[in-house]
Amino acid sequence: MSKRKRNNAQTTLGTSPGTLTYVGADVNYATKITWVEYNNEEYKVCQIPHFSDLNQLELSKNKRHWFNIDGIHEPQVIATIGEIFNLHPLILEDIMNTEQKPKFESYEGNQLFFTFKMLNYNATTREIESEHLSLVLIDNCVLSFQEERTTDIFLPVQNRIVASAGKTRKNGVDYLIYCLIDLVVDNYFMCLDCLSDEIERLEEDIIQDAKPLAMRELYGLKREEMTLRKSIYPLREMIATVLREDYPSITHYTSLYFRDVLDHTSQLIENIDSHRDLIASLMDLYLSQVSNKMNNIMKVLTVISVIFMPLTFVAGIYGMNFDNMPELHWKYSYPVVWVVMIVMVILMLIGFKRKGWL
Amino acid sequence: MSKRKRNNAQTTLGTSPGTLTYVGADVNYATKITWVEYNNEEYKVCQIPHFSDLNQLELSKNKRHWFNIDGIHEPQVIATIGEIFNLHPLILEDIMNTEQKPKFESYEGNQLFFTFKMLNYNATTREIESEHLSLVLIDNCVLSFQEERTTDIFLPVQNRIVASAGKTRKNGVDYLIYCLIDLVVDNYFMCLDCLSDEIERLEEDIIQDAKPLAMRELYGLKREEMTLRKSIYPLREMIATVLREDYPSITHYTSLYFRDVLDHTSQLIENIDSHRDLIASLMDLYLSQVSNKMNNIMKVLTVISVIFMPLTFVAGIYGMNFDNMPELHWKYSYPVVWVVMIVMVILMLIGFKRKGWL
Amino acid sequence: MSKRKRNNAQTTLGTSPGTLTYVGADVNYATKITWVEYNNEEYKVCQIPHFSDLNQLELSKNKRHWFNIDGIHEPQVIATIGEIFNLHPLILEDIMNTEQKPKFESYEGNQLFFTFKMLNYNATTREIESEHLSLVLIDNCVLSFQEERTTDIFLPVQNRIVASAGKTRKNGVDYLIYCLIDLVVDNYFMCLDCLSDEIERLEEDIIQDAKPLAMRELYGLKREEMTLRKSIYPLREMIATVLREDYPSITHYTSLYFRDVLDHTSQLIENIDSHRDLIASLMDLYLSQVSNKMNNIMKVLTVISVIFMPLTFVAGIYGMNFDNMPELHWKYSYPVVWVVMIVMVILMLIGFKRKGWL
Amino acid sequence: MSKRKRNNAQTTLGTSPGTLTYVGADVNYATKITWVEYNNEEYKVCQIPHFSDLNQLELSKNKRHWFNIDGIHEPQVIATIGEIFNLHPLILEDIMNTEQKPKFESYEGNQLFFTFKMLNYNATTREIESEHLSLVLIDNCVLSFQEERTTDIFLPVQNRIVASAGKTRKNGVDYLIYCLIDLVVDNYFMCLDCLSDEIERLEEDIIQDAKPLAMRELYGLKREEMTLRKSIYPLREMIATVLREDYPSITHYTSLYFRDVLDHTSQLIENIDSHRDLIASLMDLYLSQVSNKMNNIMKVLTVISVIFMPLTFVAGIYGMNFDNMPELHWKYSYPVVWVVMIVMVILMLIGFKRKGWL
Amino acid sequence: MSKRKRNNAQTTLGTSPGTLTYVGADVNYATKITWVEYNNEEYKVCQIPHFSDLNQLELSKNKRHWFNIDGIHEPQVIATIGEIFNLHPLILEDIMNTEQKPKFESYEGNQLFFTFKMLNYNATTREIESEHLSLVLIDNCVLSFQEERTTDIFLPVQNRIVASAGKTRKNGVDYLIYCLIDLVVDNYFMCLDCLSDEIERLEEDIIQDAKPLAMRELYGLKREEMTLRKSIYPLREMIATVLREDYPSITHYTSLYFRDVLDHTSQLIENIDSHRDLIASLMDLYLSQVSNKMNNIMKVLTVISVIFMPLTFVAGIYGMNFDNMPELHWKYSYPVVWVVMIVMVILMLIGFKRKGWL
Repeated sequence: MSKRKRNNAQTTLGTSPGTLTYVGADVNYATKITWVEYNNEEYKVCQIPHFSDLNQLELSKNKRHWFNIDGIHEPQVIATIGEIFNLHPLILEDIMNTEQKPKFESYEGNQLFFTFKMLNYNATTREIESEHLSLVLIDNCVLSFQEERTTDIFLPVQNRIVASAGKTRKNGVDYLIYCLIDLVVDNYFMCLDCLSDEIERLEEDIIQDAKPLAMRELYGLKREEMTLRKSIYPLREMIATVLREDYPSITHYTSLYFRDVLDHTSQLIENIDSHRDLIASLMDLYLSQVSNKMNNIMKVLTVISVIFMPLTFVAGIYGMNFDNMPELHWKYSYPVVWVVMIVMVILMLIGFKRKGWL
Repeated sequence: MSKRKRNNAQTTLGTSPGTLTYVGADVNYATKITWVEYNNEEYKVCQIPHFSDLNQLELSKNKRHWFNIDGIHEPQVIATIGEIFNLHPLILEDIMNTEQKPKFESYEGNQLFFTFKMLNYNATTREIESEHLSLVLIDNCVLSFQEERTTDIFLPVQNRIVASAGKTRKNGVDYLIYCLIDLVVDNYFMCLDCLSDEIERLEEDIIQDAKPLAMRELYGLKREEMTLRKSIYPLREMIATVLREDYPSITHYTSLYFRDVLDHTSQLIENIDSHRDLIASLMDLYLSQVSNKMNNIMKVLTVISVIFMPLTFVAGIYGMNFDNMPELHWKYSYPVVWVVMIVMVILMLIGFKRKGWL
Repeated sequence: MSKRKRNNAQTTLGTSPGTLTYVGADVNYATKITWVEYNNEEYKVCQIPHFSDLNQLELSKNKRHWFNIDGIHEPQVIATIGEIFNLHPLILEDIMNTEQKPKFESYEGNQLFFTFKMLNYNATTREIESEHLSLVLIDNCVLSFQEERTTDIFLPVQNRIVASAGKTRKNGVDYLIYCLIDLVVDNYFMCLDCLSDEIERLEEDIIQDAKPLAMRELYGLKREEMTLRKSIYPLREMIATVLREDYPSITHYTSLYFRDVLDHTSQLIENIDSHRDLIASLMDLYLSQVSNKMNNIMKVLTVISVIFMPLTFVAGIYGMNFDNMPELHWKYSYPVVWVVMIVMVILMLIGFKRKGWL
Repeated sequence: MSKRKRNNAQTTLGTSPGTLTYVGADVNYATKITWVEYNNEEYKVCQIPHFSDLNQLELSKNKRHWFNIDGIHEPQVIATIGEIFNLHPLILEDIMNTEQKPKFESYEGNQLFFTFKMLNYNATTREIESEHLSLVLIDNCVLSFQEERTTDIFLPVQNRIVASAGKTRKNGVDYLIYCLIDLVVDNYFMCLDCLSDEIERLEEDIIQDAKPLAMRELYGLKREEMTLRKSIYPLREMIATVLREDYPSITHYTSLYFRDVLDHTSQLIENIDSHRDLIASLMDLYLSQVSNKMNNIMKVLTVISVIFMPLTFVAGIYGMNFDNMPELHWKYSYPVVWVVMIVMVILMLIGFKRKGWL
Repeated sequence: MSKRKRNNAQTTLGTSPGTLTYVGADVNYATKITWVEYNNEEYKVCQIPHFSDLNQLELSKNKRHWFNIDGIHEPQVIATIGEIFNLHPLILEDIMNTEQKPKFESYEGNQLFFTFKMLNYNATTREIESEHLSLVLIDNCVLSFQEERTTDIFLPVQNRIVASAGKTRKNGVDYLIYCLIDLVVDNYFMCLDCLSDEIERLEEDIIQDAKPLAMRELYGLKREEMTLRKSIYPLREMIATVLREDYPSITHYTSLYFRDVLDHTSQLIENIDSHRDLIASLMDLYLSQVSNKMNNIMKVLTVISVIFMPLTFVAGIYGMNFDNMPELHWKYSYPVVWVVMIVMVILMLIGFKRKGWL
């Protein structure tokens, strides 16, 4: 990731600010545009075959419109959409900049702009994959932009519109915005839960046997938590801003729901913070386990040395070749030496037992 | 717990927000509804046989009403109650969501909504068990919702209403709300005291003998403290919000009592924070004890090596088989070697004594 | 202390809030009430023989009155005083609750209520002992409540009133309140100084020789600092509140003095914070000393092993019983072996010297 | 750097505040002044041969003027420019004081003053080199001051003005200020990316093999991060101040762009903070690797001791010279001893295998 | 220092607040009073022979007056000055209380009171020495109080007044106050630079060879940093208060300069904070060096044991006295044993080389 980032900085350094440059992963899909037109009574979902067709659309005032743009890697497409909907250049820049951190901005002409990340925990690589999302709210129209990936992540909301004339269709586009953000926040909970599981797994690993690998995994986990935090902290601030300022395009009714999302993001942040704490404590626990292991190793070494060094010394004594060593010639001295040595061992074992080393 | 949480996220992901789903532990009790009607002069406590009977109740205006709903796992029940009392859908969702963190929210129609946790320290599993509680204040009526567990935790308050025409009966339903919250906060103090005792027990354990298990227990304790913190921090904020905003349904008289509760929650938080500090210090203390133990082990090893290595060397010398070793043939060389070795040992012991190793 | 606390929580759980219960240490003194009546010209100090006599007192309006109640363990006394002076039930509860953290509260009828702790460092038990104090200011009357202990801690102020017609007598009862608080704050400085001395003592202990006991003492010190902090942090907030809100009973003149006390509490907090820092650093210093000790032990072990293992090996070689070992039969091989071994030792000692291990 | 700083403090101590003193690295270039005059239609870039020529310039009102002063080491030049443009003495002082931390200040006469650092990560010395920059905005005129170094760092912006009649030329001098600041902020991203790469390199180093050098490099990295932080934190505050206060010389249009830069600085700070966290975790990881290494070393030592000490003891036993040792004379006792010893070794190896030490 | 403090607390405990007591180091100089009278055109510097002479002075209204009182240990002198200039008793108390932390206070009658510390790093004792300073601004008159030490620290400012009719003489006494504070702040930079040098010295010491002394020195350094912080943090707050409140005696012109000083104090605080960070990191670095040293020691021990234990065992085998040991009687077995042993050593050395232990 840091590689990509640098390339970004290097290539854009010196270019005029506001230039549209895609900095994300290389993709070669064509941008897919879905138009969802709906109100309380009816709805219509259709694909826009080519982005230039957007120009000829006539948007009826008593319907809500949702353009879901799947793919943000073609500057030309983004620029055209920007022209048609009269978006501020900084919006366009942020839509394409996959490195942009989550933020909310309001521009003239009642344009509300949200950008944030969809996160996905990849269990095999043990990494969080992020997808850059942007939402624009203009009048009765929502534009959603997502990085071209395997699946359309906003599909559940689309399905909800199709499925029933429920809340989503009854309410305005501000409620649609809420639904899309809520979907993403729910997803964050899933990510966090995956990380919780990883932490629990590591917890057991460390408690049972402090393998050297555990520390590295903890470190990896910490990195992922930091990635998560980078997405969630600004998200909360973003929703708080929406609620603080009283935008006419967000009805009082919907703002209650936004407050609910705010509440969820607070919960997310608390969870992340407690994960952070847990990981730190696990590192301490790991280090204490390593120290305990060391103590155990040292105990084995000390016990073996304390037992065999005196014995070897005794054996060494009677291996000396002095002419005048009376013990050597006594009849029972050999078995006596054995008895002495066995008694020594027993005494030492009792001593160690008392010290709790065995 | 994290398992449950994930299930929650996974099953609700993509469903329309505001859908009623129970995510807590499985239970198969029927919901029990108790109706307490009281004023200064009289009171009546009765069980509502079936939740559909709630519809036919007539609530007299000059009495206070308290509906204690024991069981939040049946969406149908909650939905019916919501309809009867005209509760906001988000309230209903939060009542059933046992993962919801404590919060306070005011809705149109003077509805005040409180949700928080009852905590219980289970001494055998050494875990804090939490029970999801919700209170709704509408006009002269309080609805209390609790997870169906073995005991009705609001019983003491009910008994107080029954027992005497004291403060609780004299004052309005806002005072009842205060009593219920106060009961829970008192309970938190008991939980904290249990944890204090655990900390003290571990303290003694660590000071006397730093057993490897102590660190794990400290870690477990830390987790429990974090659980506690997650419930208490938002509780304080919740009560502070109640006091900050000037709700007509909370009289000035009762707000003094709420301020008292706020004070108690601050005290709780301070205690938790100091526990946190203590646990961190105990971890340090534990690690220092482990290091000291290691030092002692190493001292034993070193003392034994320093004493026996030279002795063994001397014995080895006179075990050599050179033809020309005059010492071997002297008459007193064997006892002299013994004397030399004993002197060496004594000198080394004196040296260790001086170094403070013995 | 935590024992007492739990009893408290357990016995009061479920009782109506506002019930008067004494939770402090058991005492069997009778409550002692001193009445100090004074103005610029004259003063009178007298003991109230029985608390019921308070009822018959007539308080002249142009004098200031100070009732010093020595003993808060008799609910009956406190209740009677509360009735006579018309105190809010929450005030009475806080006066008797020795676990109450310091706070300031203003009640209707211009009642200002202060509660805080007198702290005393007991040099023998190395613990801070706290005494629960409460002050109530009503009109031209101050009530001071203190736990019945050996000495009357407000005596110095009383003596000042007796001694001279100075500032204390010239000024109103708000100045008296200030004097009492100032006395306590001065006492905190003494406590802190005792702890400073303990820290310095430990500092020297650790620097000279890191005894295993030092860590425990540091931990004990930390606990005491936390006790201190728990009393001082809310004290500052309490005085800040007094200054922020503009109470008519506190004159502008006296508020300057209160600001001075506020300043002192800030200084106290800074000192506590720096103590905390110092203790943390001392723990680090201690651990580094332990590590250094370990290094020294290991050096001794390694030096002795490096020297004697090769020597013992050489001796072992010539202790072998092969028939065909020509060296054994040479005339000077024995002294040569000695020379070789001495040279080896010298070389190794030089090597260690160079490495800085000796 | 600290050397230079001290010299600064020592030499300026006691001199009248506001005296112009250059405290940066010694340079012997002459100050180079470039005058860029432009509006939407045309532009002119020219070198001012000598700073005294500035006096004779006539600045047309309907053009924007940018004076790029390359070199801040000549007090005379700075003083003259200050006189011509009527700059406040404190501005002049800050322009020359290369130790000045980034700040923004507005002075009378609509003078806006920005000072900050250009940072450059030198890959060979592994140090961040900083260059002191200052910008002054007066009416339709921008003065930019930079330390005389090898390259003119504002060249890209100058080229942009030359290249096209784009945004930079269309907009006012406030937009020019924004462009210059944006250039520097982009540069910070590059620096951070270099440090990210270093962190990743160290990460791999530590995970593969915890070389003693790694810790020092981490420490060095930390120092560089701190240097970076010292430049970026005040930069954010500086831009936030510009946005908070509503200066007439900053149009609403440009302030949107400034908000964008603010956003980038927040991102920078977050990155620095997460670097800080990562470095701390890497230190922990390193220490745990060192401990693991130690454990491995100790295992080898213990295994070898446990195996050979008993064997040597057995050999010692049968090296004793007692007259009466029947085993010595049995026929198969020698091979039996060998078998016993081999069995012992095998058993011990199995034991170690089970313990996971091999 | 803590000794002095306790004496203070003990002696003043119970005395009436506001009593003048000197608590600093004992001195036996007489207080020296210098009167500097100046305006744009002329100046006069003279010594006041005795403090009682102050009473007869007539201060002309169109001149500025600076009374520099050198010595704050004589309560009588301070009290007299307080009477003459009509100072608040709390001012007098703070002037004499050398333990008073820096603060700013405004009193009635436009009296502005500043008190802070002059700091001096004593390179030999490695301690920061502090001197208590106080400034009072009344109308066109400045009173400066300093502890009687070897040198008059305000001399440079006095010299500036004498030297030229520059800024200092042109501007009012508020500018004089600024000059005096600026002088002290410049001095703080010098102190910090000394500490920076100490840190760098320790850094090199630790990187080259982690001597046990380094940790103690780091600890000592930390203590000094804390002393510094205690003086500088309140200083910033003090100047911020001056700027926030809009005192008539501080002109707008001078407030720009005060803002500059505020800026410098922020810089000081940042430097202290980064020092703190560096010291913490250095402690970590030190501990990692100690661990590495330990690893190296253990490696030596292990290498020597792994090499010599098997060799000694082999020698032990052929030192056994079994009758039936065929190898003993083979002709080449002795040289063969040597070859085997040498091969073993070579193989083990290769193994260690591969492990990177040699």
